[in-house]
Amino acid sequence: MPEVVVLGSTSLDTLETPFGRAVGVLGGSAAYAGYACSFFSRPGIVSIVGRDFPKKYLTLMGKRGMDLSGLARASGQTFRWHGRYGFDVNVVQTIRTELNVLKNFDPELPGEYRRAEYLFLGNTSPKTQLSVMQQMKKRPQLVVSDTMNYYIEKNRKQVLRVCKESDIALMNDSEARQLFRTPNLLAVARKILALDSSCAIIKKGEHGAIMVSRKGFFSAPGYPLENIVDPTGCGDCFGGALIGYLAKTKDFSEQGFRRAIVFASAVSSFNAEDFSLNKLTKISLKHIIARYKKFKEFVKF
Amino acid sequence: MPEVVVLGSTSLDTLETPFGRAVGVLGGSAAYAGYACSFFSRPGIVSIVGRDFPKKYLTLMGKRGMDLSGLARASGQTFRWHGRYGFDVNVVQTIRTELNVLKNFDPELPGEYRRAEYLFLGNTSPKTQLSVMQQMKKRPQLVVSDTMNYYIEKNRKQVLRVCKESDIALMNDSEARQLFRTPNLLAVARKILALDSSCAIIKKGEHGAIMVSRKGFFSAPGYPLENIVDPTGCGDCFGGALIGYLAKTKDFSEQGFRRAIVFASAVSSFNAEDFSLNKLTKISLKHIIARYKKFKEFVKF
Repeated sequence: MPEVVVLGSTSLDTLETPFGRAVGVLGGSAAYAGYACSFFSRPGIVSIVGRDFPKKYLTLMGKRGMDLSGLARASGQTFRWHGRYGFDVNVVQTIRTELNVLKNFDPELPGEYRRAEYLFLGNTSPKTQLSVMQQMKKRPQLVVSDTMNYYIEKNRKQVLRVCKESDIALMNDSEARQLFRTPNLLAVARKILALDSSCAIIKKGEHGAIMVSRKGFFSAPGYPLENIVDPTGCGDCFGGALIGYLAKTKDFSEQGFRRAIVFASAVSSFNAEDFSLNKLTKISLKHIIARYKKFKEFVKF
Repeated sequence: MPEVVVLGSTSLDTLETPFGRAVGVLGGSAAYAGYACSFFSRPGIVSIVGRDFPKKYLTLMGKRGMDLSGLARASGQTFRWHGRYGFDVNVVQTIRTELNVLKNFDPELPGEYRRAEYLFLGNTSPKTQLSVMQQMKKRPQLVVSDTMNYYIEKNRKQVLRVCKESDIALMNDSEARQLFRTPNLLAVARKILALDSSCAIIKKGEHGAIMVSRKGFFSAPGYPLENIVDPTGCGDCFGGALIGYLAKTKDFSEQGFRRAIVFASAVSSFNAEDFSLNKLTKISLKHIIARYKKFKEFVKF
């Protein structure tokens, strides 16, 4: 039985950056978040792929201990995304999106997934997120959700409902400003708290992440990377590692959340160092802990 | 004799924000930096004003212990700047700039200024910055410089020369990327270090500041402000407080610089809470130290 149910997309990405190109490689919020989660806890993937999905990626995820009984295989092509990054990796241009089998994705959770204590509603449509939430036999101990500008523009009300149903609604700073229509991040965080969230965690890309809770304010720095090869999936890795760490430690204190954010930042920083999941397949928990310790040095004064 | 010589502009600003409007109020890099410095050390101002400069502002600065013997009074009008901020205070639109007496500003340092051990080359033309540097009898112990996009576009070579002559060349992240023509901030920092700087300190506005030195990487968070009224002069306050603190402690260790950055961030955060220098006139070192301690809480994990 999986410890963390991870909902999201699974895709074959084509990525262009000034530093190279990757074609038809493993991507998607479920793949990134699930893989990042697996450093700490056993994830069960809720997603969909097509007939063209390479067996090697199933093997990669399976070997990693990712439960794939919730990964539907449909006739048709796997979701494909083609993105291009400029010299400023903070800016991405979508060249092409082919939803394919993701278009009619209506997941049905395997029986044992429905009793999991940890649920990550990764980046996918809020309708799908709510449907998965409703299929749980009982309210999980912790529900973390993620979203993106596309769904905020298209379906703001449902995105807000997902936020309300979650314990932690993750989003990045521009999405948070857009969703709550206010530029001040602290004011945004107060609005997230007002939705009954236990805390507001806002991802800020290279600038790290902040958390506002009833206990205080926390700021985690971004990890200083000399060579950012491909930032695709960093936000998903952050969310997956965050819930994976919390499922492992079961420490929901202010301190426990702060540590989870730094572990999540560490995993996410590794992810940016190569295309697809390439870098994550080459590291172990030992490397993540070493980077966690570096974060401690970065903020000491 | 002033402990810190502070070069920069003195202006009468008109500011428009969604939260209000201020007309003809005290501003300019020398006024902000000098005032921020005065919480820690005695600044001597090198700047210029016109006949229209209100006596009340001279009194304000004088009472504060700012030495004004280097503040030239010329016939003509004081430098005036009119800026407008939108709901996103990170974006400012210049409505009007009248250089007036600043146009032909060619400062001559009072004799005792030339032996100061601390020099802040605040935001003004690189030509003026180099001229002031050359007037010093001996190399000050610490030279901190600041610049802005206007001068980088207009006179990149001279800006780079000022950076090379300084111990610390302050700039904000977008200016740093522009000056060194590279989007990666760590790569930018390496280029600053290659110019013989003892460390690279990059201001990131609401995201705080980072320092890269030969000893390591430091990240200071931005202070979470619920109500940012007017961010004008925050960068100048950061620089002025930084050098003021260092002149007071004379602690040039990695640890000393880190503390200086946090004190500078604290002063700068107060500045954003009201128009002009209004907030700074209402606080004392006690308030700054209290905020410094809060920064310690913000980064603990």
